[in-house]
Amino acid sequence: MFTAAIAAPSIKLADTDHPLHPLLQQRWSPRAFAPRAVERAKLLSLLEAARWAPSGSNRQPWAFVVGMHGDDAYTRLAECLNPSNAEWALAAPVLILSVAQTVNSEGKPIRYALHDVGLAEMSLIVQAMALDLHVHPMAGFSQERARAAFEIPEGFEPVVMLAVGYLGDPAQLNERRRAQELESRNRKPLREFVFGETWGEVAALVE
Amino acid sequence: MFTAAIAAPSIKLADTDHPLHPLLQQRWSPRAFAPRAVERAKLLSLLEAARWAPSGSNRQPWAFVVGMHGDDAYTRLAECLNPSNAEWALAAPVLILSVAQTVNSEGKPIRYALHDVGLAEMSLIVQAMALDLHVHPMAGFSQERARAAFEIPEGFEPVVMLAVGYLGDPAQLNERRRAQELESRNRKPLREFVFGETWGEVAALVE
Repeated sequence: MFTAAIAAPSIKLADTDHPLHPLLQQRWSPRAFAPRAVERAKLLSLLEAARWAPSGSNRQPWAFVVGMHGDDAYTRLAECLNPSNAEWALAAPVLILSVAQTVNSEGKPIRYALHDVGLAEMSLIVQAMALDLHVHPMAGFSQERARAAFEIPEGFEPVVMLAVGYLGDPAQLNERRRAQELESRNRKPLREFVFGETWGEVAALVE
Repeated sequence: MFTAAIAAPSIKLADTDHPLHPLLQQRWSPRAFAPRAVERAKLLSLLEAARWAPSGSNRQPWAFVVGMHGDDAYTRLAECLNPSNAEWALAAPVLILSVAQTVNSEGKPIRYALHDVGLAEMSLIVQAMALDLHVHPMAGFSQERARAAFEIPEGFEPVVMLAVGYLGDPAQLNERRRAQELESRNRKPLREFVFGETWGEVAALVE
C-alpha cells in the first residue's frame, strides 16, 4: 500500500544552535519529489492549516489555486514556472499558487497582504511536514502568466508557487540539482539579526 | 516551581473541517498573558525557529528587536503600541518587533521581504506553541515611532509587534477584551478561497 518513504538526507536537518521542534528542524525545500500522488485528505489538511493562520484584523487576504498532476490547473500552473524550476518541480504531484489580496473592497492597499500570505504558507508547510510531505516554495515563475492563465483580477497578486509531494530520490536530479539537494543548509547566526536596545548590536539574550 | 498552566478555553480550538496538527489547531492569539517570565532558552528557540524559515533565494530578509519586561528595549517597544493594544499587551513578558529588509544592498526592492518575514514569524509562533507559549502578532503600533526609537535605517521596515508569553486568565481583562478572549474563532470556509481551473470557483478537491 505504502511506498517506503525515502528518508531526508540527514545533512538537511537544520544544524541549530538552539533546539527546535522536529517539524521545524526537519523542514527543508527539496527538489526531488517521489512519483506518488498526495492523498486528497492530506491536501485538504494543508489548506485547512493555511485557513487558520492569523492575519491582520482577521482579513485572511489569501487565495490558493491548486493543481494536481494530470488536471488542467496543474498544466497551466506548470507553464508559469521558470525553466530552471520546471526542470525539477514537475515531478511534484501538486502545485499550489498562493495569491494575496493586496487591495480591500474599498480600494485601499492591504499593507500586510504578502506578510499574511507568508503566515498562511508556513502553516501549510508545517502541516505538510506533519503528514510526511514536503513543500518547496518558489518565486521563480511568471506572475503575469499566472494572472493571465487564471484571470486573476486586479487587487490580487500571485505570490509564490508551492511544489508539494513526498520526498524523492536525489538520484533522479541532474548533477547540479543533485549537488544542491545534498548540500547542508545554512542560515545567518542569530547575532546578525536579533537586536536589543541598539539596532545592529546583538541582544544580550543571544550572547 | 511551575505555576499551573491555565488551559486555553476549549472554544479557542480551531473548529476545523479537516484535521490539523495540534500545534496548529491549538494556536490562537490571546490577550491575557500570565505574569510569568519566558525562560531565556525558550526565547532563543523561538528566534532559532524564525532563523530556519525559508526565504526567497535564502536572503533571510528579517531582523527582530527583542524586549524583555524590565529592560530598556521592552519599554521603548511598549511605547510604540497603540493604546488599544497596550491596554492588554503589556502583561506579556516579551515583546518582539519584526523588521523586514525591503531593499537589498544594491538598492533594489525585495518584493518578498514582508512575505518572508511572515514565514519566519509563523515558524516562531509554531515553536512557541511547542513550548507552551502563545504569541499575539499586532499591526497596531506606530512604525514611525519604532523606527525612531531604534534608529532603524532606510531599507528596513518595522512589520509586526509580537506579544509573547504564557497564557493568562481571561478574568484579568476588561469586559470588552474578556468577551473577545472567550469568543470562538472563525475563518472563511475553504470553498471561498481555494480555486482550481477557474478563479473564483471552488476547486473540485474541496467540494
